[in-house]
Amino acid sequence: MNQIRIGIYGYGNLGRGVECAAMHSDDISLRAVFTRRDPSSLKLMNPSVPVVSSDEVAAWKDEIDVMIICGGSATDLPVMTPKLSQMFCVVDSFDTHANIPDHFAAVDQAAKQGEQLALISCGWDPGLFSLARIMGECILPQGKTWTFWGKGVSQGHSDAIRHIPGVAEACQYTIPCDEVLDAVRSNDCRDFTSQQMHTRECFVVLEPDADADVVRNQIVTMPNYFAGYHTIVHFISQEEFDREHRAFPHGGTVIRNGSSGKDLENHAAIEYSLKLDSNPEFTASVLVAYARAVHRMHKRNRCGCISVFDVAPADLSPRSPEDLRAHLL
Amino acid sequence: MNQIRIGIYGYGNLGRGVECAAMHSDDISLRAVFTRRDPSSLKLMNPSVPVVSSDEVAAWKDEIDVMIICGGSATDLPVMTPKLSQMFCVVDSFDTHANIPDHFAAVDQAAKQGEQLALISCGWDPGLFSLARIMGECILPQGKTWTFWGKGVSQGHSDAIRHIPGVAEACQYTIPCDEVLDAVRSNDCRDFTSQQMHTRECFVVLEPDADADVVRNQIVTMPNYFAGYHTIVHFISQEEFDREHRAFPHGGTVIRNGSSGKDLENHAAIEYSLKLDSNPEFTASVLVAYARAVHRMHKRNRCGCISVFDVAPADLSPRSPEDLRAHLL
Repeated sequence: MNQIRIGIYGYGNLGRGVECAAMHSDDISLRAVFTRRDPSSLKLMNPSVPVVSSDEVAAWKDEIDVMIICGGSATDLPVMTPKLSQMFCVVDSFDTHANIPDHFAAVDQAAKQGEQLALISCGWDPGLFSLARIMGECILPQGKTWTFWGKGVSQGHSDAIRHIPGVAEACQYTIPCDEVLDAVRSNDCRDFTSQQMHTRECFVVLEPDADADVVRNQIVTMPNYFAGYHTIVHFISQEEFDREHRAFPHGGTVIRNGSSGKDLENHAAIEYSLKLDSNPEFTASVLVAYARAVHRMHKRNRCGCISVFDVAPADLSPRSPEDLRAHLL
Repeated sequence: MNQIRIGIYGYGNLGRGVECAAMHSDDISLRAVFTRRDPSSLKLMNPSVPVVSSDEVAAWKDEIDVMIICGGSATDLPVMTPKLSQMFCVVDSFDTHANIPDHFAAVDQAAKQGEQLALISCGWDPGLFSLARIMGECILPQGKTWTFWGKGVSQGHSDAIRHIPGVAEACQYTIPCDEVLDAVRSNDCRDFTSQQMHTRECFVVLEPDADADVVRNQIVTMPNYFAGYHTIVHFISQEEFDREHRAFPHGGTVIRNGSSGKDLENHAAIEYSLKLDSNPEFTASVLVAYARAVHRMHKRNRCGCISVFDVAPADLSPRSPEDLRAHLL
């Protein structure tokens, strides 16, 4: 089998997830991991894969078919993805929804200049949930879509709590509200706010002298993150935290309620849901499948920036079109 | 807006569903309905749409952008789709899974000859459920997929009962077995047969002199259709039948259980489900969305036969790529 040679740029939880996903895909071969840290400080799962300083990435231009960029959306990806897409076909998981148009424009220009293909905002939201939203709207144009997140750990919210003085460690679970989920499943088509749709449950380890009431108050009143939400705060020991809250579960549900028939008299519901033990490993699995598609589309001379909306499902599969039609259609 | 001009070839439940779906899509215009029956015998919902004899279809070559073929898979589509795809871009809902490769080959040849684009086996299974299966496998290559059908009316099974002597009318509901559904949702990865996964509930109106025990026995022992299944047979009056069993609800669930992590130690589940008041209207809604994609792909010079696996989601939407990225990604 002609393997697709991928590189991992950035080796945190997501990068490790990509290493795992590549390991379990026969047609994908991990060629190198690139890091801004001292390469000798990284321990890969597969020690035969070279770890390379990010300064030397240009020398690997002909060795990597698709670079999977595993950086953060706040400051890393807006710089890394345009830069790398001048040299490599790339996939990133840029997830700041409001800034997607700007990121797309910057990457599109760079990738076209380098005659590369770049797929941005891949993963499950944006990513698979975006597909559920577009498909729901296209098939049932008369209708409404809801996205519920959780139950799962939100890194952004956990980080926000960690920045409060007196907090030693914190983990925040986003939990969909069962009553609203049931209402939407029963075709209740009211507008629900994110605050009505989700509860936020926080597990916090305090520093020795911290005042629990002060910390709790700072959490529940934090604008954008917690204010307006039903927020539950538990103070726990470091031991309990380490035992119970070190994993990264996540998931969620996209529901489309729509209508069919002459007078829209018939209801139709489409529901898509994910339940993940490991958010970064699952996100990485999505990135690897889309790296396969990027490689194929680039071989067909596609350049510039694309999103999951532009990829035909057949390009995600290592199986032949004949095989897919015979067994999965 | 530049509307896409569609034709409907065959005006049964599915054809009527396409008429409804076209009515509710601003960028789709129904140009004509073609029928093998006497055109004057058809009553469309929109009386200003011409009804044309199928014999005259060739004269409409330049008037129709995409023909949606609404025939049966057993005898209609294997003839109609290759024939029409020499003249028109077409979409059909061919659903005899075992014969898809042959149908594809015949349609591919005809469509290439006519420089048209034909999308076969569209709807929800094959169709949207096929997408759920391929996506599940591509993203979680280490895993297993289950397809549950129902609760809903199976036309094939209802027809099979109607052919039994002594049966005046019949309706068969395929019902997923809750215990197996719960087991799969709990990551029980055993092989389950279709018989274990589904119950078959039949509502039968007998002819005046029929023997209920004989009819029941013929149903429950019918090979392929009922033998081996948990089958429940109710004998009811024509009045009850007309009141309770004239609709076409359907739906189902595709579940992918997979694993991630170095040693596949983490579980990930993807679930896709449909709950439809009207199976033919929903199927028609899928056909209309894919007709939009076929028209666009053909304008980009794509010819031959394709399936839902070959269509990028953006092509299904009337919205611009920029709009989609800004609002749905």
